Amino acid sequence: MTVTLVGFDADDTLWHSESHFVVTEERFQALVRPWSEPGDTAAHLLDRERQNLEVFGYGVKGFTLSMIETALELSDNTIPQAAISQIILWGKEMMRHPVDLLPGARQVVLEVSAQYQTVLITKGDLFHQESKVAESGLADHFDRVEILTEKTPDQYRNVLGRCGGVRPDNFVMVGNSMRSDVLPVVEMGGRGIHVPHEHLWGHEEVAEPQQSEGWWTIEKLADLPDMLAGFDSAPHT
Amino acid sequence: MTVTLVGFDADDTLWHSESHFVVTEERFQALVRPWSEPGDTAAHLLDRERQNLEVFGYGVKGFTLSMIETALELSDNTIPQAAISQIILWGKEMMRHPVDLLPGARQVVLEVSAQYQTVLITKGDLFHQESKVAESGLADHFDRVEILTEKTPDQYRNVLGRCGGVRPDNFVMVGNSMRSDVLPVVEMGGRGIHVPHEHLWGHEEVAEPQQSEGWWTIEKLADLPDMLAGFDSAPHT
Repeated sequence: MTVTLVGFDADDTLWHSESHFVVTEERFQALVRPWSEPGDTAAHLLDRERQNLEVFGYGVKGFTLSMIETALELSDNTIPQAAISQIILWGKEMMRHPVDLLPGARQVVLEVSAQYQTVLITKGDLFHQESKVAESGLADHFDRVEILTEKTPDQYRNVLGRCGGVRPDNFVMVGNSMRSDVLPVVEMGGRGIHVPHEHLWGHEEVAEPQQSEGWWTIEKLADLPDMLAGFDSAPHT
Repeated sequence: MTVTLVGFDADDTLWHSESHFVVTEERFQALVRPWSEPGDTAAHLLDRERQNLEVFGYGVKGFTLSMIETALELSDNTIPQAAISQIILWGKEMMRHPVDLLPGARQVVLEVSAQYQTVLITKGDLFHQESKVAESGLADHFDRVEILTEKTPDQYRNVLGRCGGVRPDNFVMVGNSMRSDVLPVVEMGGRGIHVPHEHLWGHEEVAEPQQSEGWWTIEKLADLPDMLAGFDSAPHT
């Protein structure tokens, strides 16, 4: 089917995100090292984050609160109070971190948006995502920007509706997360293109996906235009 | 001018919000009472919140982080660590608090949306606002739901664009905050209806507004349908 609408994920597809969490988490592991081995700290923090997702949602503010809780729990409320201030400062640093575009991101967005309707589809904290979209300098190249609380098949269907009623089989979604960018799109009848990134948050990991059709992997974002051109010249895929 | 689109604010216009902050803040003042008088605590917290707005945006998670910072600052890092856990639990309670509709809210939304195009326009945390909109049971009565990071004249203009290009003079916005719901709408050429609520966050307070035209005050939300009918029968106002 012809492609008319291309969706781009943002965090770790167009710009760095998880690497900032990784750096902060390493500092955090060092901070609580007197009470917990780094491996145990990582496991406890991920567990705490997962429990907190349903009350706080995605994003840096919830991550910061999860680090504070983890520090208090692992130290049995004995960690010095100044360490809590330190964690909050890290959270603010993350919120204020400049947007670093990934290699080729600007070029690919320009090239693809010259040829297709495009939509930026990201999830998480509205305030932080809007700031990053604005700072990226890419916002004007997208026909729409959609910031969602969760990337489910239903949420993708709603986005297609707001994009003027695009049919799922005319939609291709590009992103680094199988769980958020690829599988839910395939489930609702669209196509997914997976661009793996060096870092993937534990919560986004999926076992080897059962679903083998409807999605493709490209090594780097710069391979996207050729991939899309291939779809258009092969109407039966 | 005829009214074609009516915008409703949500927090403290359709459902209680600030009262949950007020209750939590009273508990917080008691918690840090060994180090600070309630009045000083309130002033310090508001100041901290205002400084943090530009890095965290609006919402409960930023408020929770501001309370933690305030507690550490006022106690010079001597507040017991368990108090920090307590503050985080209050944050979670606020996030999970059931939606309490204000008197008449459901009836007025039903009545107005039967006659006009309607849009719910709220600001703050995407995750929390979406949860509240869903839980309110009112979402289906609005033609659109818009969750913004800030309510500025530009943001209102964008909303009118997304509502199909409604002209400002065909738009009326209803809400409890002069600063967010009334003045920016009047500034961009729309009309505002102010419905005062018992509690108003310090940050939303404005000095007596200079702008005296283009907005009206009603005592309670139930007076809205008559107010709107008045606009339609007086085309020159």
